[in-house]
Amino acid sequence: MNKNRMEQMTWVEYEASTTEKILILPVGSTEQHGPHLPLGVDTIIATEIASLVAEQIPAVIAPTLSYGYKSQPSSGGGPLFSGTIDLNGTTLIDLTRDILDEFLEDGWKKIFIFNAHYENEAFLAEAADLLLRKQDTEYPKIIIANWWDNVSPEIVSQVFNEVAFRGWALEHAALAETSMMMYLAPELVREDLIPDDRIENLLTIQQFPPSRTIVPASGCLNTARSSSSKKGQLLVEDAVNKIVTILSEEFSLHSPVNVN
Amino acid sequence: MNKNRMEQMTWVEYEASTTEKILILPVGSTEQHGPHLPLGVDTIIATEIASLVAEQIPAVIAPTLSYGYKSQPSSGGGPLFSGTIDLNGTTLIDLTRDILDEFLEDGWKKIFIFNAHYENEAFLAEAADLLLRKQDTEYPKIIIANWWDNVSPEIVSQVFNEVAFRGWALEHAALAETSMMMYLAPELVREDLIPDDRIENLLTIQQFPPSRTIVPASGCLNTARSSSSKKGQLLVEDAVNKIVTILSEEFSLHSPVNVN
Amino acid sequence: MNKNRMEQMTWVEYEASTTEKILILPVGSTEQHGPHLPLGVDTIIATEIASLVAEQIPAVIAPTLSYGYKSQPSSGGGPLFSGTIDLNGTTLIDLTRDILDEFLEDGWKKIFIFNAHYENEAFLAEAADLLLRKQDTEYPKIIIANWWDNVSPEIVSQVFNEVAFRGWALEHAALAETSMMMYLAPELVREDLIPDDRIENLLTIQQFPPSRTIVPASGCLNTARSSSSKKGQLLVEDAVNKIVTILSEEFSLHSPVNVN
Amino acid sequence: MNKNRMEQMTWVEYEASTTEKILILPVGSTEQHGPHLPLGVDTIIATEIASLVAEQIPAVIAPTLSYGYKSQPSSGGGPLFSGTIDLNGTTLIDLTRDILDEFLEDGWKKIFIFNAHYENEAFLAEAADLLLRKQDTEYPKIIIANWWDNVSPEIVSQVFNEVAFRGWALEHAALAETSMMMYLAPELVREDLIPDDRIENLLTIQQFPPSRTIVPASGCLNTARSSSSKKGQLLVEDAVNKIVTILSEEFSLHSPVNVN
Amino acid sequence: MNKNRMEQMTWVEYEASTTEKILILPVGSTEQHGPHLPLGVDTIIATEIASLVAEQIPAVIAPTLSYGYKSQPSSGGGPLFSGTIDLNGTTLIDLTRDILDEFLEDGWKKIFIFNAHYENEAFLAEAADLLLRKQDTEYPKIIIANWWDNVSPEIVSQVFNEVAFRGWALEHAALAETSMMMYLAPELVREDLIPDDRIENLLTIQQFPPSRTIVPASGCLNTARSSSSKKGQLLVEDAVNKIVTILSEEFSLHSPVNVN
Amino acid sequence: MNKNRMEQMTWVEYEASTTEKILILPVGSTEQHGPHLPLGVDTIIATEIASLVAEQIPAVIAPTLSYGYKSQPSSGGGPLFSGTIDLNGTTLIDLTRDILDEFLEDGWKKIFIFNAHYENEAFLAEAADLLLRKQDTEYPKIIIANWWDNVSPEIVSQVFNEVAFRGWALEHAALAETSMMMYLAPELVREDLIPDDRIENLLTIQQFPPSRTIVPASGCLNTARSSSSKKGQLLVEDAVNKIVTILSEEFSLHSPVNVN
Repeated sequence: MNKNRMEQMTWVEYEASTTEKILILPVGSTEQHGPHLPLGVDTIIATEIASLVAEQIPAVIAPTLSYGYKSQPSSGGGPLFSGTIDLNGTTLIDLTRDILDEFLEDGWKKIFIFNAHYENEAFLAEAADLLLRKQDTEYPKIIIANWWDNVSPEIVSQVFNEVAFRGWALEHAALAETSMMMYLAPELVREDLIPDDRIENLLTIQQFPPSRTIVPASGCLNTARSSSSKKGQLLVEDAVNKIVTILSEEFSLHSPVNVN
Repeated sequence: MNKNRMEQMTWVEYEASTTEKILILPVGSTEQHGPHLPLGVDTIIATEIASLVAEQIPAVIAPTLSYGYKSQPSSGGGPLFSGTIDLNGTTLIDLTRDILDEFLEDGWKKIFIFNAHYENEAFLAEAADLLLRKQDTEYPKIIIANWWDNVSPEIVSQVFNEVAFRGWALEHAALAETSMMMYLAPELVREDLIPDDRIENLLTIQQFPPSRTIVPASGCLNTARSSSSKKGQLLVEDAVNKIVTILSEEFSLHSPVNVN
Repeated sequence: MNKNRMEQMTWVEYEASTTEKILILPVGSTEQHGPHLPLGVDTIIATEIASLVAEQIPAVIAPTLSYGYKSQPSSGGGPLFSGTIDLNGTTLIDLTRDILDEFLEDGWKKIFIFNAHYENEAFLAEAADLLLRKQDTEYPKIIIANWWDNVSPEIVSQVFNEVAFRGWALEHAALAETSMMMYLAPELVREDLIPDDRIENLLTIQQFPPSRTIVPASGCLNTARSSSSKKGQLLVEDAVNKIVTILSEEFSLHSPVNVN
Repeated sequence: MNKNRMEQMTWVEYEASTTEKILILPVGSTEQHGPHLPLGVDTIIATEIASLVAEQIPAVIAPTLSYGYKSQPSSGGGPLFSGTIDLNGTTLIDLTRDILDEFLEDGWKKIFIFNAHYENEAFLAEAADLLLRKQDTEYPKIIIANWWDNVSPEIVSQVFNEVAFRGWALEHAALAETSMMMYLAPELVREDLIPDDRIENLLTIQQFPPSRTIVPASGCLNTARSSSSKKGQLLVEDAVNKIVTILSEEFSLHSPVNVN
Repeated sequence: MNKNRMEQMTWVEYEASTTEKILILPVGSTEQHGPHLPLGVDTIIATEIASLVAEQIPAVIAPTLSYGYKSQPSSGGGPLFSGTIDLNGTTLIDLTRDILDEFLEDGWKKIFIFNAHYENEAFLAEAADLLLRKQDTEYPKIIIANWWDNVSPEIVSQVFNEVAFRGWALEHAALAETSMMMYLAPELVREDLIPDDRIENLLTIQQFPPSRTIVPASGCLNTARSSSSKKGQLLVEDAVNKIVTILSEEFSLHSPVNVN
Repeated sequence: MNKNRMEQMTWVEYEASTTEKILILPVGSTEQHGPHLPLGVDTIIATEIASLVAEQIPAVIAPTLSYGYKSQPSSGGGPLFSGTIDLNGTTLIDLTRDILDEFLEDGWKKIFIFNAHYENEAFLAEAADLLLRKQDTEYPKIIIANWWDNVSPEIVSQVFNEVAFRGWALEHAALAETSMMMYLAPELVREDLIPDDRIENLLTIQQFPPSRTIVPASGCLNTARSSSSKKGQLLVEDAVNKIVTILSEEFSLHSPVNVN
């Protein structure tokens, strides 16, 4: 039993947490991640990083959203791959808004949405905006963050020591995500199937209907060669530390290391 | 690694399953279940029974929906309890419709929605209807079922040998669900906190805003006294068998016991 | 002229009623009811029972909603029958919410929705919930009820003296509804066409698209044999009495028999 | 029993009509109509004129929509009057679209929406457009009409022989509607309360929130003085004849007088 | 640089205007206007008249809405003409509501929507109603007007001195609009292509799908013969004066001629 | 008269273009752009660059969308600035979808959305996806692009020769946009008010409700110092060339320089 996972808590335990802790809502996706990674990569990373964050600050982790917004060719391979289950934009907005509204009704003042699927961003933000746009007090406050914007340049240099870093958009099912999965859930990585694929050019446009030729057949946008659990650990720990620091500041937590 | 859990499969493995297997979408909720059971009871029961069904028929289990429609006082205690996270009706309709639409796009012909939260029913059905209402072929076909309508009277008699069975609506967080959790996830049951509460009279009306006095303070609608893992096993196995039989007939499976 | 039917009242007469009376909104459907009953059975029963209730408590009856949510095979025969006009779920939610919102704006504190079409239930409740969910006073209050949950077991025994009672879901266009129509609107019952059909097994699942073989060709889910006006009177009067009692309690009416 | 009222027909009778007849959907409102006319004026006029049309051409009359779009000050007195129950625009669009879609599914090729509430017009048209906009065949065809655009100038002169005709918009609860009600439903007209009110100037703008001073306190936009059943008969019969002629042409009916 | 066009103002200049001036939102369309007038006629007329009004009263003119509600055959030729870009009703409602809501948030108390496309009317009004319906103060106030309801009978007589005035609905791309364009944007009028077409009979019904035969092939509903810049000037100046007078009264402006 | 601006074309001229040309839909916003730039910066840049593109490839330019999605603090200063008019996400999706649907109905096969407001991106893409997601032919095809992703690194180096380039997100109302406006619409730039403000740190999170302290009071996210018309010309011409090349390839145009 995990004492800060909402689905494992009773309502009495949960109710006692709302005034003192942070509510974390992890958001992932169900999306192809190459021949070597499972469909739940984003969901797993979102949930695991949330758990690591909750080891350092007092928090309750809500059930992770396992379905996300539509995969884009330029950052996720796009809708043509089997196993990529895409929500419409209004659906993700409504889903997130309803859940946040209920957390607010339960009395939470500090809510953190941790997102591990790039395409979700605009729609998660819209949901939070619809609820709090006209509020003129500082709290309740909702913070949304992902891991890739919270990795420091030094760590990027260490991780991309053998292959070039071509930007986070192309890291879909590539070196960074593969390494993180090798660290967080090694039993789910088919290491013998790690591809060395890459999309040739960065896309500077969007095209509809999606092209059938731009994305490599593997679904990987960049090579996963040189992935390792150690690199995954570097990425994960760096992101966790950065996020803990941000939440401590944003939510005025005085001693983030004392977790109930 | 669980070879039939979609989030653990690669897209290549998943794609190979669509023409031969059944896609199961479990649906739960995040809802108070008394002082002794966790908020994820419905999610856990939905996922676990789906897993047991998938041991007997070839199936892929999609990520469970962890948030459901609004808890009603007469069947779930209602929205006033902390930790009950309620989706609006249109949100659940849209969420389910989007996901089903994507499964249909992936080529699934046999889809089974297994629901463990009573209040979801009308909205899950609406989603399936919106997609297939005007289809004039038999397949793709979507079947929706729950566990309580698929337990045989004999099992009910065995389970309710010490306390009276007052109907499934009142079994929220009571004997049946408590026993099932003791069988499926015993580490999550606070046995020392099992209540002996009951709602006095069956509600024959609905009332808005929800009453603050009808539902017992514990959130349980009927007593959980005499719950046991053994009774949980009886209920679970009976429901699994019944559902396997139904799916075999409805989806014309010839040898349900040969699982991939 | 009926002095408590809203459509026959002037706005001045109506306005004078809002502070002292109950507003009743009857809800029916347009749905096949076998070869012997008209498409408006649910609308007629809703309106007539509302009228009988209004003879005992001070009330204004709003225009009945004549179109309802989608008929389900297991409780109404389903959408494949001609003459069954089904609203989408969101449409019925919005329609009911708009109307209720206007009644609240007009100053009503006590609103009663009387529903005679099973499939409407979840959507009527959603509409009321959307309006009053966050209200923290007891009034305005909305009560939703139907007739079948408000018939006493003794009356059921008397009515089903020749044929077995198999549950209310199967009473679509069967003994109960036929008898009620023989009592309330005998000129609309084609007695020579009363069928003796029945659905073989209770459905424990839902299936999409709807099956073309499960429901009897007549559209009746159970036999209407032994129907009579007398049995209809028993059912109607019992439901009316029960509902009057409930409304008197829920709305704190002291002398329900003194009507305006 | 009225053999062409849908709610009184069995589904078998109804089904036999779809290929040969016209389906008429009357649309009214629940709206204040002065101190002398009931709230259901538009609903009653819509239903009664539909019945008279159906005496001359083969038709089935569906249940009337009793709630309409928002009353406007310049044509109905506006939302500030008690008893005026206003639907939002999207609600009326969705309601009408769902119903029309079902009639089309039932096989109707000739559908006539007869509207008696001015403010409904744009939203009824939107519903029909959403369904048939991209259809490239002539049938199924939907015709929408009202009565006021189908009264000939000669009849207007005869009816407004004592008071001036100031345009149909101002005839809300005034001479024309009062006369028609005296002809169609005289028992519902409070003749002793017929007002002699009038709005001073024609409104050439719309104002939000609605003004509390422009509309006379009675709710009548023009005088109802000199109303009579005879004048009502002139208006009704003229509109019925015009509409029968239009439907005969538009739906290519060869002998409109032979009614089943 | 135009000092009262919002898109040309800085936010600092704009902010300084909100408490003292009127915010004007012009609304047009993109719709066929015959072989001699451009698709932007309604947009151009809306913008130009708004500019002339703003010369007489202190106002800021927001960016014009260039896309409007669906063209109807009886007032705009309908959707079958190329270049007619039609918004759905709910889209125009939502667009207008969002924009108005933001203007209200910016502190505007006096908002004027000036509409030059007939079919927009019901949907613009719905947007304003949704925002202000339940407001019980007089301000903020939204006024909606068009030009055709604000032209005096004397001017109509002068303009229609050679051809008959058959009502504003038929003036689509006809004498009035052609003349106004010759006055406001003469370089956009193809004078050699001015048609002499006319729809035969006034439509007293609406028909779906739209007829391919009723509207003249040119797209003009009435003749544009005898159009002139002088007549355009008469119409424009008369409408501007009327509107300035109305706004001065409705918004209690004491000296309409003193412009910032 | 501009022969490729849709609002200035007649429907006959427009119709003749649909099979041979590209339809360009520029999309801007109404958003604060510091004390020195007008609210219409994005609208102006979108329209002007579209015009320059249309000088090199055969195209028709549709009316620009002047209102866009919600300004974000990290890329536009956010909603707290006066004059920033934000559409909800679903509104922008619906608006764009309706317009695109009509262009497709008019027969366009090659559609280009040119966006100059960063926050619009996800919602424009959603609209295109909703229309073409299930299309299995290559055409009609919709391409979406902006200018900042289509500026080459060499030009960035030349433009940012005096101040550091901190990423496109911070270029809101800063050096790049100021220079482009000095080149495209110099009369609208208040050069004496060009600020030297900057946001201190790149935001790696989103925060709701929006912070009142992060964004500089001017609304500029980075310095506009060293802006010049010459730099604007470099940026504009580079983007135009890149876009012309992309469209020529994507739409298989053989001789992009031969414009109608």
